[in-house]
Amino acid sequence: MIRGFINSRISRDKKLYQKLHNLLGFYPGKISLYKIAITHNSYRNTPNNDPKKVNNERLEFLGDAVLGMVVAEKLYLKFPYKNEGFLTEMRSKIVGRSKLNSIGKKMGIHQLLHYDIKLKNNPVFIDAITGNAFESIIGAIYLDKGFQFTKNFILNKILEQHIDFEELLIQELSYKAKLVKWAQKEKKKLDFSLKNVEMENKRKIYEVAILLDDEEIVVGKNHSKKIAEELASQKFCLQLSI
Amino acid sequence: MIRGFINSRISRDKKLYQKLHNLLGFYPGKISLYKIAITHNSYRNTPNNDPKKVNNERLEFLGDAVLGMVVAEKLYLKFPYKNEGFLTEMRSKIVGRSKLNSIGKKMGIHQLLHYDIKLKNNPVFIDAITGNAFESIIGAIYLDKGFQFTKNFILNKILEQHIDFEELLIQELSYKAKLVKWAQKEKKKLDFSLKNVEMENKRKIYEVAILLDDEEIVVGKNHSKKIAEELASQKFCLQLSI
Repeated sequence: MIRGFINSRISRDKKLYQKLHNLLGFYPGKISLYKIAITHNSYRNTPNNDPKKVNNERLEFLGDAVLGMVVAEKLYLKFPYKNEGFLTEMRSKIVGRSKLNSIGKKMGIHQLLHYDIKLKNNPVFIDAITGNAFESIIGAIYLDKGFQFTKNFILNKILEQHIDFEELLIQELSYKAKLVKWAQKEKKKLDFSLKNVEMENKRKIYEVAILLDDEEIVVGKNHSKKIAEELASQKFCLQLSI
Repeated sequence: MIRGFINSRISRDKKLYQKLHNLLGFYPGKISLYKIAITHNSYRNTPNNDPKKVNNERLEFLGDAVLGMVVAEKLYLKFPYKNEGFLTEMRSKIVGRSKLNSIGKKMGIHQLLHYDIKLKNNPVFIDAITGNAFESIIGAIYLDKGFQFTKNFILNKILEQHIDFEELLIQELSYKAKLVKWAQKEKKKLDFSLKNVEMENKRKIYEVAILLDDEEIVVGKNHSKKIAEELASQKFCLQLSI
């Protein structure tokens, strides 16, 4: 009986091993990491399942960081003349929730997931946990195969196959993104510059200036540098009627 | 005259080279990267300076991502039984603005910075650009020396020397952090579980449940998963009177 149990487990592992190969394009080393990566927290609610079973949230945390870094470097190198604001916007388009969910689905990750079967008819839930598992799998690859391997995987299997940089360039996220796009089109030099930091009731207030061809146009002030940039961008967009 | 100019430049480079060695503990390879890393955007306002001079913001973007990833892995390995919420909180304490500013200052980075000298009497400004330059320098090290070297630098020269993990554990950032701390003290198993995702006016609403020893206690709902967790944590903290 024990042998039967072990055999069935080995056979299940073999199947997963093959499925992962088909999905990722390489044979995993430490299969246990990938098993965790495809296990959503809700799986514990499934009858007869061990409620203490680990879930993929820790691996998601790690995978998110690895993906964010590799994408940051790719953008840094791909766009040598673009400023930090542009790079940040581009990255949030690539590693944003909806993009990750859709890439995960295209890769077929949703077919591997372990989760509470009662939720199987909730497509929004399935979409969300697919994107999360996609990050978890990246975390698993990193721990299993190391940095260089994971970097190559992200560059060749994810960015190369699923990201259209040209298309991303024309999508808009915010006033800042709108302005960045406008400046590119007009071939103007656009910069966001931290002009001053002052204290108000023990909180910092950032004053950010927008420079167009090195000339200061508008400023924005806020406790958050990012919001200060948005406020300044909004003013400028209004001025430009864009 | 040209020779004089070149000589003075080489001599300035040599000084920077030596200063960087003292500060970082190794000799930089591509000194030009580090020169960019210590140049704040405001430096262009300095008289006789080239207004088109590059600044450190792109390197800051890259360094921020590298630092975030190395810290994520460190926390993942150091706290094998902590959940993703805990790891996220810990990381934001380590790579948060105020921490980076203070580490940058302790390392002496502020003494190397190039910035608009008119701002030299604004200590809050200097603090902020020191933290940013600290991230830029990490970006420079990554491009100069590669991933493994940078990882070792961050682990041994930054985390080892400047981060007291025990102290961080008792700092609070949010209701969630408060709850995490409470659960640790009480030796309770605390989990944040994505219970459902629904659509409302084309926007996702996340429903997050807090599980204590696998029993659901409260839920929080919001368009942001993070805020849903905070709302649920707040309810629970009120119930616990902590």
